[in-house]
Amino acid sequence: MTQTFATPDVTTDVYSRVQHFYAHQMQALDSLRFEDYAATFTEDGTFQHSPQAEPARTRAGIVAELVEFHKRFDGDPVQRRHWFTHIALTPQPDGSLASTVYALVVTVRPGGKPEIAPSCVVHDVLEIDEGRVLTRSRLVTHDQMF
Amino acid sequence: MTQTFATPDVTTDVYSRVQHFYAHQMQALDSLRFEDYAATFTEDGTFQHSPQAEPARTRAGIVAELVEFHKRFDGDPVQRRHWFTHIALTPQPDGSLASTVYALVVTVRPGGKPEIAPSCVVHDVLEIDEGRVLTRSRLVTHDQMF
Amino acid sequence: MTQTFATPDVTTDVYSRVQHFYAHQMQALDSLRFEDYAATFTEDGTFQHSPQAEPARTRAGIVAELVEFHKRFDGDPVQRRHWFTHIALTPQPDGSLASTVYALVVTVRPGGKPEIAPSCVVHDVLEIDEGRVLTRSRLVTHDQMF
Repeated sequence: MTQTFATPDVTTDVYSRVQHFYAHQMQALDSLRFEDYAATFTEDGTFQHSPQAEPARTRAGIVAELVEFHKRFDGDPVQRRHWFTHIALTPQPDGSLASTVYALVVTVRPGGKPEIAPSCVVHDVLEIDEGRVLTRSRLVTHDQMF
Repeated sequence: MTQTFATPDVTTDVYSRVQHFYAHQMQALDSLRFEDYAATFTEDGTFQHSPQAEPARTRAGIVAELVEFHKRFDGDPVQRRHWFTHIALTPQPDGSLASTVYALVVTVRPGGKPEIAPSCVVHDVLEIDEGRVLTRSRLVTHDQMF
Repeated sequence: MTQTFATPDVTTDVYSRVQHFYAHQMQALDSLRFEDYAATFTEDGTFQHSPQAEPARTRAGIVAELVEFHKRFDGDPVQRRHWFTHIALTPQPDGSLASTVYALVVTVRPGGKPEIAPSCVVHDVLEIDEGRVLTRSRLVTHDQMF
């Protein structure tokens, strides 16, 4: 075996920006700042929280989808946290970045222990424009459904 | 909606240094090297492990607090690990950095399964002096108590 | 106490490359692309998945070890994910990097909740050659066995 592994070539600057972008993006989501979360997508961005779901389209569409989704927590004082690890980037021919990231959803209720489920993989296409990262599309797959 | 999200402007160099700093800082804590952990704080640093607690002040005070806290594990062969994700930095007017980070405490006993609790958020103020990161203050909030 | 903590001196470029390397390396492992995983080791690399195990040596030996290990999952539709946090690097005199990283193994079966165990620490020696990261040796210790 003579193959040698080479991590796809992404500059340090881009890798770091993507990490920091995700930190703020997901803290916005978990703080229920849905407009801030939607603003991390391109104007025509798409967000598909599971393969069966119809993708939400445009920032306004993403906000509407999140408002609808979170109705299940009405009257339920839940704190959710989306954990990420292993951000693997692959440059695409059009200059965008394919980003594949592991995600765990941590859910906590007052006085309770964290429930850590589901285990997901986030499949993003990211654009970088003048140093600013935006999500063009996001598809979330679920390890429990395979 | 025309708002576009911009991650707060932090250089690649600073973001990477903060990540690496946290790795060594928290491995020091989990290895019970309390003096090394305290040395990651400024001389007058403060450490408040929950909103109800009185903050420990100065490096000597932080060591004393940790020694006291860990007495509950005397005779209990526990290994704790503090997991971090989503380091979100925001530069402050005085040149410091506000850092908001998700944390999960993983606790393991011989032969057992990891207990993963509590889910916390670390609120730090960091100083960077000649490339060296130090914690000026740390407040840890707990998702179970809201 | 006048000691001040200094994170070991590693360039931003190196730290970022190591993070990105781990993301692709571990996604290869969890996707059962064993040859790709083995290719992230040096030609004479060693991989020891627990202190009791004999280390697997060379890329071919690592592939053989992984094939053997995964026989336990034959007919068991399991998805495993190796989570990493706190990558702490320390430059070695020979130019390599000692890397100490926390790891949690997340295991999911169809319709089930993730099982999050064991809690491990990965002890790597990494080589960087013309910007390409490779693992020279890996020893994994387990928190449950101490």
